[in-house]
Amino acid sequence: LKEVIMQADQTSPIGVFDSGVGGLTVARAIMDRLPGESILYFGDTARVPYGVKSVETIARYATQIAEFLIERRVKLLVVACNTMAAVAFQTIRDLSPVPVLEVIEAGARGALARTRNHRIGVIATSATVASGAYVRAIKGLGNGCTEIVSQACPLFVPLAEEGWTDHEVTRLTAREYLGPVLAQDVDTLVLGCTHYPLLKPLLREVAGPGVELVDSAEAVSERAELLLRDLKLANPGLEPPRHVFHVTDVPMRFQEVGERFLGRPLGNVQLVKW
Amino acid sequence: LKEVIMQADQTSPIGVFDSGVGGLTVARAIMDRLPGESILYFGDTARVPYGVKSVETIARYATQIAEFLIERRVKLLVVACNTMAAVAFQTIRDLSPVPVLEVIEAGARGALARTRNHRIGVIATSATVASGAYVRAIKGLGNGCTEIVSQACPLFVPLAEEGWTDHEVTRLTAREYLGPVLAQDVDTLVLGCTHYPLLKPLLREVAGPGVELVDSAEAVSERAELLLRDLKLANPGLEPPRHVFHVTDVPMRFQEVGERFLGRPLGNVQLVKW
Repeated sequence: LKEVIMQADQTSPIGVFDSGVGGLTVARAIMDRLPGESILYFGDTARVPYGVKSVETIARYATQIAEFLIERRVKLLVVACNTMAAVAFQTIRDLSPVPVLEVIEAGARGALARTRNHRIGVIATSATVASGAYVRAIKGLGNGCTEIVSQACPLFVPLAEEGWTDHEVTRLTAREYLGPVLAQDVDTLVLGCTHYPLLKPLLREVAGPGVELVDSAEAVSERAELLLRDLKLANPGLEPPRHVFHVTDVPMRFQEVGERFLGRPLGNVQLVKW
Repeated sequence: LKEVIMQADQTSPIGVFDSGVGGLTVARAIMDRLPGESILYFGDTARVPYGVKSVETIARYATQIAEFLIERRVKLLVVACNTMAAVAFQTIRDLSPVPVLEVIEAGARGALARTRNHRIGVIATSATVASGAYVRAIKGLGNGCTEIVSQACPLFVPLAEEGWTDHEVTRLTAREYLGPVLAQDVDTLVLGCTHYPLLKPLLREVAGPGVELVDSAEAVSERAELLLRDLKLANPGLEPPRHVFHVTDVPMRFQEVGERFLGRPLGNVQLVKW
């Protein structure tokens, strides 16, 4: 794989991958911030969701996807899936000849930059919470006196995919999940799953005006911009970008759900049969 | 594969398979009705849920699982997954040297036996509803003048797995999904997904006393009893039954969720690495 990096150049795409469509919110943030960059997206829609799978299985799948993208000459890998970032980041970095960014560190940095009372809430899938990755990232980057309250919210993903982003059921579910977190007086809440940005208005309402929401998708796109500039790998934009979306299955309502997440039409979608 | 059937005998196990843990409600109904039979269960927990995947992918996975069980000398296959039964039953029957039963025909028969006003409601996953399988089964078995109202309820599976079986969020979700079905004056409601029996008390409450619920798990276990007797393949029960549970992943809370679905301890669990 070491030869690959020699072949990647400024015009090479950024590889963004996720267990499904959720990572399209990250692709969207990168497109908005870096309109000259091409994106090679991989969504493992046949095997989604990862959030409830074992660590071994998640690491095996992550390796397979990262190798797929590296073989296609990406210049940078972005792990858009919180679950993969939480349990398989080290595995991916060890195998990759190109730099790897992920949403958790970015979200942790964003939260630390915003909190004033050093009490941070993190909401995510069960696997992400159980991994303790956000707690480690925030403790590792912070000054050590930060209190972190984590809460698994497994129903938010199906609710976002059902399109119930402004629905009484979602509001009630959010109150149930966020109640114990808000009771701990946090002033910052990390949306630790790529699906959650779609619930942002509702979560902002439930959390109230005293709590700032941190969106990892925006945070990681900022990191990508800086890193590409530092490595002199930013695309000079002489040609229009080309985006390709690889998926392992074309599930029902894929187009509709995907375009809602991406915020624009899905162009070139390729089916990968694994 | 034809040689396999020659090797299967009365003491061979019944193969029961599903996309995940949901089919354990079917295994449970069979254990309750046929306590002398051994069960070889297969739950594709690494690739669950199937309900939103494409027909091609579901058929490919179903073939792989059926072959796995046939190679292990089952005497009967029970497709416990409504989604697989809806879109891949023909594929499975074509490849199988042993008889195949599935939940949809059984549920359709149960509904027709109970309805008095010939208005039947069916609730299931999006893929099952989109396949039209229940409508075809009920129309095919009935006298042709039955009205069928179908409703996809994608949030019921995550709600059942979250354990919110008696929760205000689930009640509100059930009212939203069932509202249009009940407005059509149905007197019978088919629970067209293996997860739904866990929500039975709540669904009974929301549906009201005038609506009878049909549980496909019970219906298919009845069919299995009759078929084994007809084929002289019922286990004489000289030795205690042996149950083995194959899963493609051991997800978080598997033991807890699985035992809730099975209604007893999970004994011999084997991990299949695909």
